[in-house]
Amino acid sequence: MRHAVASSSDDTMLPGRAVRLACRSGALKGSTAGMALGYAQGNLAVLPKELAGDFLRFCQANPKPCPILGVSEVGSWEIPALGADLDLRTDIPGYRVWKDGEMIAEVDDVRDLWRDDLVAFVIGCSYSFEEGLIAEGIGIRHVEEDVRVPMYRTSIPCNPAGAFSGPMVVSMRPLAPRDAIRAVQISSRYPAVHGAPVHLGLPHLIGIEDLAKPDYGDAVTVRDDEIPVFWACGVTPQSVIATVKPSFAITHKPGTMLVTDRRNSEYAVI
Amino acid sequence: MRHAVASSSDDTMLPGRAVRLACRSGALKGSTAGMALGYAQGNLAVLPKELAGDFLRFCQANPKPCPILGVSEVGSWEIPALGADLDLRTDIPGYRVWKDGEMIAEVDDVRDLWRDDLVAFVIGCSYSFEEGLIAEGIGIRHVEEDVRVPMYRTSIPCNPAGAFSGPMVVSMRPLAPRDAIRAVQISSRYPAVHGAPVHLGLPHLIGIEDLAKPDYGDAVTVRDDEIPVFWACGVTPQSVIATVKPSFAITHKPGTMLVTDRRNSEYAVI
Repeated sequence: MRHAVASSSDDTMLPGRAVRLACRSGALKGSTAGMALGYAQGNLAVLPKELAGDFLRFCQANPKPCPILGVSEVGSWEIPALGADLDLRTDIPGYRVWKDGEMIAEVDDVRDLWRDDLVAFVIGCSYSFEEGLIAEGIGIRHVEEDVRVPMYRTSIPCNPAGAFSGPMVVSMRPLAPRDAIRAVQISSRYPAVHGAPVHLGLPHLIGIEDLAKPDYGDAVTVRDDEIPVFWACGVTPQSVIATVKPSFAITHKPGTMLVTDRRNSEYAVI
Repeated sequence: MRHAVASSSDDTMLPGRAVRLACRSGALKGSTAGMALGYAQGNLAVLPKELAGDFLRFCQANPKPCPILGVSEVGSWEIPALGADLDLRTDIPGYRVWKDGEMIAEVDDVRDLWRDDLVAFVIGCSYSFEEGLIAEGIGIRHVEEDVRVPMYRTSIPCNPAGAFSGPMVVSMRPLAPRDAIRAVQISSRYPAVHGAPVHLGLPHLIGIEDLAKPDYGDAVTVRDDEIPVFWACGVTPQSVIATVKPSFAITHKPGTMLVTDRRNSEYAVI
């Protein structure tokens, strides 16, 4: 499936668009990890416009978990800067629908739920810097084990803004210490896609008691000669939605992302 | 003492030269940590010329522990690029004299031991990046506790070159995890003064069984909410001399360094 998507017969089509069209047609329903290599993927958060201003300020105040790659016009399902012919209602493999802070459904298409008052936010994703790690020969455990990255709600509070507050969510990758050091260097180049880790080594200090029980995604093996390295995660808005309980929201399903037409390299600062 | 040195009455004198003259006069005998802020300090290794070529190749092959800041002409005790009126025989607070791999004396002046066939190497020192850490508000434990930085012989082998081989020596600073991440970023800018850490978090993996028993320098407190962070150390030549057993060598005494006239900022790569 992944190869079929990556080698679309239309040679002029960017690989991100090929992935999006595969989602739109219903052919692709799972994780987007490793797809359209070289192109940035994004987390989705969709909120009614009366909350959008506060949420934008919340993201601005929390750039590590919520680095904004793009924002739609009110009512629009397009963000042209992130991709041609992009439909945020259909182009992500899976969606979560939220009512009053409760997730009420997981669906693969939200066309019938879209409203004229919705504003969509696309937030940077760690898949971008993972590519840099893999290029250096650093193994990514959840890729090796073919599961979703493990994610945890932490005791680190986000900076509040208006109605929005809540705990930061982090993703975890176990790494040998020397790879952890290299990973800090590599991911530091990409502040728009979470940047450097927020923690390493001592998970209980950030409220994580059991690495084997992630709050989102799947557990992965952590070896005795590895330390867990934690990055701020674009799933944070989902923990915030559960805290703030907005009347209505749509997010992506963790691990299944929007694939954009922006190159990861565009987000490197040095 | 430190303030007296730093505020020399000769306003045209660079602070490094003031420290060197204080050493030369015998007024300064202890650690140079925190002296001549903004200026690079260096480790010393002096060897007979028949070993100098191999040692230079050894340093080139091991740039993290042995980044060379300067090399003297054969028989010379000067390295003009590192400082005006610099005398390597007198300008360091303490020296170690080595015969057949054994340290036979610690002295504060090596004029009477100098020979026409000696070549001096000055190797970068972690005091340079410590200044960057302190400027960010990151506490350096051995500075806070007013002792020498703890250093350990590791199980990490240096890359051999000619006669030279042996274990890498590392310096250790305990840091809160978020400070450890920032310290990787800051020290990465200074590859000429050891650069990024070589290890963090799991000292037994690099052959360190007890942090309370350093091989050089002094032990420091490591708190429960901190991880030990290890940088390659310019004392490595001393462990190599003990391994290789050259007929004659002079080094600095760990913690008491050559203060140069080169600014730390000159060594930043970005």
